[in-house]
Amino acid sequence: MKNTEAICKNFPHFLHGGDYNPEQWLESPEILEQDMELMKASGCNTMTLNMFAWATIEPEEGKYDFSYLDMMMDKIYQNGGRVILGTPSGARPAWLAEKYPEVLRVTENGLKNLFGSRHNHCYTSKLYREKTAQINRALAERYKNHPALIMWHLSNEYGGECHCEKCQEAFREWLKQKYDNDLDKLNFQYWNRFWSHTFTSWEQIHSPSSLGELRCHALTLDWKRFVTYQTTEFMKNEIIPLKEITPDIPVTTNFMGAYPGLDYSYMKDYIDVVSNDNYPVWHHYFGDDIIALKTAWIHDLDRCLMDKAFIMMESAPSNTNWTQVNKLKRPNMHKLSSMQAVAHGADSVLYFQWRMSRGGSEKFHGAVVDHSGSADTRVFRDVTSVGETLKKLDEIVGARTKSEVGIIFSWANMWTLDDFKGFNNNDRKYYDNIIANYRPFWDRGINVDVVTEGADFSKYKILIAPMLHLMTGETVQKLEEYVANGGRLIMTYLSGMVNENALCYLGGFPANNLKKVFGIWAEEVDAIYDTDEVYVKTVDGKKVRAYDFCEVIRPQGATTLATYCDEYYKGTPAVTENSFGKGKAYYIAFRDKGVYADMLYGRLIDELKIEKNLDADLPNGVTAHSRESESAKYIFVENYNADKKEVCLDREYIDVETGEKVSGKLLLDGYGVRILKADKE
Amino acid sequence: MKNTEAICKNFPHFLHGGDYNPEQWLESPEILEQDMELMKASGCNTMTLNMFAWATIEPEEGKYDFSYLDMMMDKIYQNGGRVILGTPSGARPAWLAEKYPEVLRVTENGLKNLFGSRHNHCYTSKLYREKTAQINRALAERYKNHPALIMWHLSNEYGGECHCEKCQEAFREWLKQKYDNDLDKLNFQYWNRFWSHTFTSWEQIHSPSSLGELRCHALTLDWKRFVTYQTTEFMKNEIIPLKEITPDIPVTTNFMGAYPGLDYSYMKDYIDVVSNDNYPVWHHYFGDDIIALKTAWIHDLDRCLMDKAFIMMESAPSNTNWTQVNKLKRPNMHKLSSMQAVAHGADSVLYFQWRMSRGGSEKFHGAVVDHSGSADTRVFRDVTSVGETLKKLDEIVGARTKSEVGIIFSWANMWTLDDFKGFNNNDRKYYDNIIANYRPFWDRGINVDVVTEGADFSKYKILIAPMLHLMTGETVQKLEEYVANGGRLIMTYLSGMVNENALCYLGGFPANNLKKVFGIWAEEVDAIYDTDEVYVKTVDGKKVRAYDFCEVIRPQGATTLATYCDEYYKGTPAVTENSFGKGKAYYIAFRDKGVYADMLYGRLIDELKIEKNLDADLPNGVTAHSRESESAKYIFVENYNADKKEVCLDREYIDVETGEKVSGKLLLDGYGVRILKADKE
Amino acid sequence: MKNTEAICKNFPHFLHGGDYNPEQWLESPEILEQDMELMKASGCNTMTLNMFAWATIEPEEGKYDFSYLDMMMDKIYQNGGRVILGTPSGARPAWLAEKYPEVLRVTENGLKNLFGSRHNHCYTSKLYREKTAQINRALAERYKNHPALIMWHLSNEYGGECHCEKCQEAFREWLKQKYDNDLDKLNFQYWNRFWSHTFTSWEQIHSPSSLGELRCHALTLDWKRFVTYQTTEFMKNEIIPLKEITPDIPVTTNFMGAYPGLDYSYMKDYIDVVSNDNYPVWHHYFGDDIIALKTAWIHDLDRCLMDKAFIMMESAPSNTNWTQVNKLKRPNMHKLSSMQAVAHGADSVLYFQWRMSRGGSEKFHGAVVDHSGSADTRVFRDVTSVGETLKKLDEIVGARTKSEVGIIFSWANMWTLDDFKGFNNNDRKYYDNIIANYRPFWDRGINVDVVTEGADFSKYKILIAPMLHLMTGETVQKLEEYVANGGRLIMTYLSGMVNENALCYLGGFPANNLKKVFGIWAEEVDAIYDTDEVYVKTVDGKKVRAYDFCEVIRPQGATTLATYCDEYYKGTPAVTENSFGKGKAYYIAFRDKGVYADMLYGRLIDELKIEKNLDADLPNGVTAHSRESESAKYIFVENYNADKKEVCLDREYIDVETGEKVSGKLLLDGYGVRILKADKE
Repeated sequence: MKNTEAICKNFPHFLHGGDYNPEQWLESPEILEQDMELMKASGCNTMTLNMFAWATIEPEEGKYDFSYLDMMMDKIYQNGGRVILGTPSGARPAWLAEKYPEVLRVTENGLKNLFGSRHNHCYTSKLYREKTAQINRALAERYKNHPALIMWHLSNEYGGECHCEKCQEAFREWLKQKYDNDLDKLNFQYWNRFWSHTFTSWEQIHSPSSLGELRCHALTLDWKRFVTYQTTEFMKNEIIPLKEITPDIPVTTNFMGAYPGLDYSYMKDYIDVVSNDNYPVWHHYFGDDIIALKTAWIHDLDRCLMDKAFIMMESAPSNTNWTQVNKLKRPNMHKLSSMQAVAHGADSVLYFQWRMSRGGSEKFHGAVVDHSGSADTRVFRDVTSVGETLKKLDEIVGARTKSEVGIIFSWANMWTLDDFKGFNNNDRKYYDNIIANYRPFWDRGINVDVVTEGADFSKYKILIAPMLHLMTGETVQKLEEYVANGGRLIMTYLSGMVNENALCYLGGFPANNLKKVFGIWAEEVDAIYDTDEVYVKTVDGKKVRAYDFCEVIRPQGATTLATYCDEYYKGTPAVTENSFGKGKAYYIAFRDKGVYADMLYGRLIDELKIEKNLDADLPNGVTAHSRESESAKYIFVENYNADKKEVCLDREYIDVETGEKVSGKLLLDGYGVRILKADKE
Repeated sequence: MKNTEAICKNFPHFLHGGDYNPEQWLESPEILEQDMELMKASGCNTMTLNMFAWATIEPEEGKYDFSYLDMMMDKIYQNGGRVILGTPSGARPAWLAEKYPEVLRVTENGLKNLFGSRHNHCYTSKLYREKTAQINRALAERYKNHPALIMWHLSNEYGGECHCEKCQEAFREWLKQKYDNDLDKLNFQYWNRFWSHTFTSWEQIHSPSSLGELRCHALTLDWKRFVTYQTTEFMKNEIIPLKEITPDIPVTTNFMGAYPGLDYSYMKDYIDVVSNDNYPVWHHYFGDDIIALKTAWIHDLDRCLMDKAFIMMESAPSNTNWTQVNKLKRPNMHKLSSMQAVAHGADSVLYFQWRMSRGGSEKFHGAVVDHSGSADTRVFRDVTSVGETLKKLDEIVGARTKSEVGIIFSWANMWTLDDFKGFNNNDRKYYDNIIANYRPFWDRGINVDVVTEGADFSKYKILIAPMLHLMTGETVQKLEEYVANGGRLIMTYLSGMVNENALCYLGGFPANNLKKVFGIWAEEVDAIYDTDEVYVKTVDGKKVRAYDFCEVIRPQGATTLATYCDEYYKGTPAVTENSFGKGKAYYIAFRDKGVYADMLYGRLIDELKIEKNLDADLPNGVTAHSRESESAKYIFVENYNADKKEVCLDREYIDVETGEKVSGKLLLDGYGVRILKADKE
Repeated sequence: MKNTEAICKNFPHFLHGGDYNPEQWLESPEILEQDMELMKASGCNTMTLNMFAWATIEPEEGKYDFSYLDMMMDKIYQNGGRVILGTPSGARPAWLAEKYPEVLRVTENGLKNLFGSRHNHCYTSKLYREKTAQINRALAERYKNHPALIMWHLSNEYGGECHCEKCQEAFREWLKQKYDNDLDKLNFQYWNRFWSHTFTSWEQIHSPSSLGELRCHALTLDWKRFVTYQTTEFMKNEIIPLKEITPDIPVTTNFMGAYPGLDYSYMKDYIDVVSNDNYPVWHHYFGDDIIALKTAWIHDLDRCLMDKAFIMMESAPSNTNWTQVNKLKRPNMHKLSSMQAVAHGADSVLYFQWRMSRGGSEKFHGAVVDHSGSADTRVFRDVTSVGETLKKLDEIVGARTKSEVGIIFSWANMWTLDDFKGFNNNDRKYYDNIIANYRPFWDRGINVDVVTEGADFSKYKILIAPMLHLMTGETVQKLEEYVANGGRLIMTYLSGMVNENALCYLGGFPANNLKKVFGIWAEEVDAIYDTDEVYVKTVDGKKVRAYDFCEVIRPQGATTLATYCDEYYKGTPAVTENSFGKGKAYYIAFRDKGVYADMLYGRLIDELKIEKNLDADLPNGVTAHSRESESAKYIFVENYNADKKEVCLDREYIDVETGEKVSGKLLLDGYGVRILKADKE
């Protein structure tokens, strides 16, 4: 793959626009006309159609009516726009659910769902697979040659699960595959002699249920993997007719960050490009820097899933409607958050939604055009401004991101951290802990890759594995090799304790050879209350507070970087460093909320000369991210503070929006963003 | 209707007494004798019988045994008392539920109820309607000429809902009626193309359920309306035999304040007089003034439902048993709270209950006679004291209340405020917001009417519509006319956004012509956290804090009365005033907790010369309410403080209890009440 | 029974060891060998086998495979150990649940359970009773002569309930028995005319259910009693083959403190010795003294159930895995908590578990041997140290406890306190209130018996009945006799209000003659918020704060010891004393958190010369408990503080561990325990 490559070959531009539901306005043709005028006025070029329009295009079984879609495809194209076409499986028509109840889900306690809501389909149902393939085929046949069509968007936010009898059967088949048709293998991995749970026939196995089994970690993990598998099978079935008829049109579906219901690192193998839905809770009382960090991390995860530019498929032009307190985006924030996505690798700024619905549960979700229908709104002006900027950025389309730092994230690990009982059973805060390890790089304007266990670690100078409780034997070995070959590996408490089926490693933690890599044995895991004050002291005398988890470790060759100051493990190591092969391994035995991480990574960044996007001290809440084409590097300098900030530039750049040269002091408005270009020599 | 008119023509007195269950004591005839003595001793004159006695009077199907009821009707009458006769539908006999399971409810997730508890009947069941009509007919036939009978009390606290298949059918029939048998009409109002929800047959429609649809606002609203309709149909069926056999005996049923399960403004059209159950949580740590305010508001609502005196059907002589902390009423509180009801329009002080049950879930609910059976209790003496006062007030029976101020309350609005997602999804606090607008009048001793959308607004000098999010087109027009004709209308944030089916108005908020009436356009709704400090400054420099909601409005002709001091909307209007026709319209764009309301209404009260019940500055926690007969006005001066307060009287009055003249300083005990009479000239 | 008598005649020693699941390690014979070495190294002598091994020993229906058990019984015996043999009913094999679904439970809302978890059997199922009797018979036949067998352990933590149709039938039969086949008797006790609940056939009765009846207190009580009865019947059925084949082997089952699901005072009549599971949350932020108190109270309850030494069947060698925050036991704590059990009457220190499982929900529950398999751990050393001490204590095996103080605890009372609505509906804190009355004795190192209503009260100088809301008529009479014969009885608010079916006593509280015994009438129960400050003043001027409940009582002969300082009941009695017959009765009308109890009991202890285990002032958090053989008294001096404490001894003792004489200052380490012996003269 080239360093820059546009996702849509037939429309190599930033996509700007979003979900548009003209089927809701068929009674008001003047509104549809107005939408076209507004689209042009706002600098939008892409509309996502048909997401939830199944009942409109197939009003009764087998009887298609594409008239509205024909009209809108044409109209949008005539007005200079393009179309992302949705497959409508996310919400089936009422007639379909009425006639074929098998398409609706069964809950985990065995109750049959009624028609209603959206994500409510059995992904195992053959009938539903047939119906979705049929409608997809019809759509592809009809629009395969339409010049507006630039992408397929599958369903909408795949998610949830079904526990019907057909799903149970499919689950058992999946298990037979996984365990080579050998029930003893499964019994061993499930450690089923515990509580006399040995299965003697496959039919005895049922999905996790509050009426049956919720406490077999391996069963829960396998069920979650099966849900990902089965959802993916459903998705693949949707893709078949599309690829057959329109092989050159890229296919995507919208992911929801680190959504715990599906392992996207598996699903992404079957689509052409990753899309994400992006709804940060800006202006939260947590602070905009925290929100920005979490959002940045998600964008990095989505970019790294396929290691290329991705599509931001949904975002709110202003407020959402589903958080507790849906604040309006403050001035500048809309552009800042849109550019944040671009900075991290998005080739689009797409919205949910173009025009607010009059009714339905999302009628007060922010949109480009609100119920007034007016272009004379703050939001419409903000959107128009983003449209102007995106045009100036066109040369960045497809540009890639370079990073020397990797952080491991794993769905299976998240699942088991959420599931097991032991040590501290309060929210395990996997996500917060990752962020605490991510922040030191964000604060310094350093690009980071967020990768899963399957990634190639060798390209990173620093690799961080926070709370990686579950590790396959292969991962254990990969980590050992990474360090042996010269990498710097950082690991924390709870790491390397169980295998892929949540079965404990024997012989002391962390697993197998990792004890040698880190030069330690983690003997006990203490848990502490928020009211317990436990501190850690570094070798150079700095004190850091520990929370939630304090592992008691025994050095077996490692050097101590910090020791506990309290409790019976006072004086024992809290952080260690160990040379192994050509590399070094660091073990952080206690929960740090980021204070220690900042010290450690600060030191390693200097030591290893990790590249910062700007050679400057950045004010708090200001960061910088970059994308590179073959000829130039583009640096997005982002200010998540409500007030103005200054950054001292190390060299001269070109401001991409104004085309002017900038150097010296770079001024950032409150929630301001500046986009700088540095030509490569 | 005359200015004063007694509810019970055959007993034109204050009703004092309450729910009495002699069927529980048939094994102890000496206790029944004792009850008669105690009734006389306590000044009680009315007993409600038969509320939950179905199993006693129809011990097996079709076999009646009225012996206990005959005995008690006679006994009470012989001892000078009268009887309110309950119809027993609130709790069916076990044999009935066993033989006809259809009478029991089905839950929203499809599970069939078992026999038990009370409110557990399907209001659609034909069988249950037949059975309740039969027993009511038998009761009416038997007691139609009994001199003790003064009123019918239907069932008890109608409430709850059933989701059985028969209810689903009835719901669909009701929808067909509402939407003229036109599914497209329904689909349009439900905005069903959203999420592909278009119904193509009526059978596809199901009541809101956690297994199906919970997020279609219009469906939820229609279901709630249907529940009110169907409950009323059930009630009407109960009334038929009573009205046929005893046409002169008034029929009532006990309402529960602003109970969200039923729209009482619909139900009240089918009864002769409104009753309420009144259980304020006195001595709560919120403060007794807050509790008094909320209670006052409910009494006003119940009086205004039929615009005449009402019956307080239940109240606790001391503590209740169902709140978290059931405090005993402090000395004087029982009389004060009883007189509060009378002051607001009640023609009775009735208790739940006369004698504590020995068993059952309410055995520790306060009662006139407790488990000791003694008259030598604090509670019994308090009740006796109220009995004495009520005798002295006999001339007030039926007297009416005059008010120049109206506050709109709407069940449908409450339902949609509780249902929609958007802006601030924390408890929307409709009730608290109404109280904040009500308090300035209560503090000044001014009578207020609490009216629903159907009321005649023209009689009010001031009309307040707090958070009136849902408005029918008709209401929009009525409000416009009210202002055009000279009224002062106050409206707040979130108002006039959706129609009766929760479908948004297009063209900008508030709906349609209200933008002209108020001279504004409400462009955006911001939501804020409790930690966000946003202030508003009035034109005369006072600062008021805003909470939860801050609308960003654009004046289009209106005058600004206050502006925001913070956030990006700093300097934009937070309160506006607009002249329209002969009247004025005020828009309060932010959530005020009452501080601003007090300023605004204080000014309007002076400007419009709204009449205060006493021309005096009332101490905090002291208020005054009045009722008027043709010849006199009766003023209840109420002190909700634990300590003594004084009020300076503007003229001479007669103390109704002592018969003495009072003027100058009027002394009020802690929790004291004084009842003053002013003859009309 | 003699003063000292070992539970296991064939092994009259302290049992040290615990639950061991070798069936989980059959694939690793080297681990089983290692376990034997570690058992000896740690001073363990007892292993509980077979607890959850049904699927291993009966892999398919009727086909037994005892090979692993044969091997382990032999191996353990050969290594000097003994075996407690578990019956495997706690978790049935998957094949059994698959073939006979009737063995699985039905939930209270009628849903059928799936296979999974453990406690999931219908105790009524005939089939399950047959199957469990069969496997028990097979076990007894096989191991009846095995020299390792010292005890039978029935199932594991019997608990939970089933609502299937067979259970409904059995419940009705039980009710017929209780109410002499007379439905009127039941209707009267249930007060069923309330809410028209009269049953006219037994078939109308159903267990409490959220779909039916949850608010009939008598029904709830009867259901809970039935669950205890039916579980006991199930247990008795398990015992039959064991007693038939191995009449000399004692039978036990593990109780869970004051577990609310079962009335152990009923169950214990059918076993030979009481066992308990003991999992205090040491190092909680509540403070270790509070945890120690609650634990001490439970041990006393378990000892008093059969008035003899008991078995601590489960305890954690370090952390548990199921509380929110599972802290590691701090140094010394393991020995202290083990000795606490012994001090209160345990003849064992047994653990759950010997070796951590690799998988399953309890894989991170503390164990003697962790996943490292190493003896070089802090926990293993702690266990070894306890093993050494237990050997030195061998002479105490079977020694009894003497007490002059009794505190009444009643399951039925707990059930009704948790169930009724009234007064203060926040957590009624029965347990906390008992502890507040228990602590003054613990603080002073005085032995206390915790007894149920059926006990012989006459042996106590002081008898305390905290919050004894439910009293049978017999108990009322027993308490009267106790005082009349010279006892000191202390009772509190809420006491003596309802009979065994939660039916209120008439004629004033407390019930019947207790008004005379106490010389008071409790007229009203006030409830107060945490924000209400109500104080009580003693006759000697000390002020004590009241919480939650303040009864307003009227003295009728009693002397006032303290009066209320606040609220309208200011000046009325808060504590009274009354001479009755040869004894005295004290009534505490308010909720005291222990401050008043300390004053009152301090005075009574002096007055009645109650024996302290050490004649010394004990520092806070230090206590002493004793056991006595025929020749000597053994005093356990326990320090629940993290720091060192000193106690001044009144005489010379022998330190049981060192064999040395000690007198004067006795030094206690942080979390230290010293065991002193005083020979009897």
